[in-house]
Amino acid sequence: MTDENIVFIGRKPAMNYVLAVVTQFNSGSKEVVVKARGRAISRAVDVAEIVRNRFVPDAEVKEIKIATEPVEEEGRTANVSSIEIYLEKP
Amino acid sequence: MTDENIVFIGRKPAMNYVLAVVTQFNSGSKEVVVKARGRAISRAVDVAEIVRNRFVPDAEVKEIKIATEPVEEEGRTANVSSIEIYLEKP
Repeated sequence: MTDENIVFIGRKPAMNYVLAVVTQFNSGSKEVVVKARGRAISRAVDVAEIVRNRFVPDAEVKEIKIATEPVEEEGRTANVSSIEIYLEKP
Repeated sequence: MTDENIVFIGRKPAMNYVLAVVTQFNSGSKEVVVKARGRAISRAVDVAEIVRNRFVPDAEVKEIKIATEPVEEEGRTANVSSIEIYLEKP
């Protein structure tokens, strides 16, 4: 999979990322990965659900992975949770 | 599965819920489901990751489900995302 199929969720409103995912599906991608860390994880789930329920009804959640990633913050290393939601069109 | 195997994530610190999950595994449960809605979803992922990485190393993430649930709020119905993380011991 190339990087173009990954949408990183940040602090913007969910609809910004929904648009990014829908655009990738409309441009021919069969799979789009929604990724987020920390507090953005809730928004990632919102994005995946809004895409499926409102814009790309035939998209399915193929797999969801969670993990722990080390993050450098002010000289020390903290752990932050992450999520990857794999959306797939048949 | 009975209700005793479900841990609902709310607004308390993650370690409160980690303790609840670990207690259920230690009392003999083979599967514990971590559930959350809305902004608590990020905390649910934290809880699952802390349980696996620090307290119950043989626990595996068997499945993760996401969904959209209608919630009554001040007379109107809003949609909120939810997550269920199924943790299983072999």
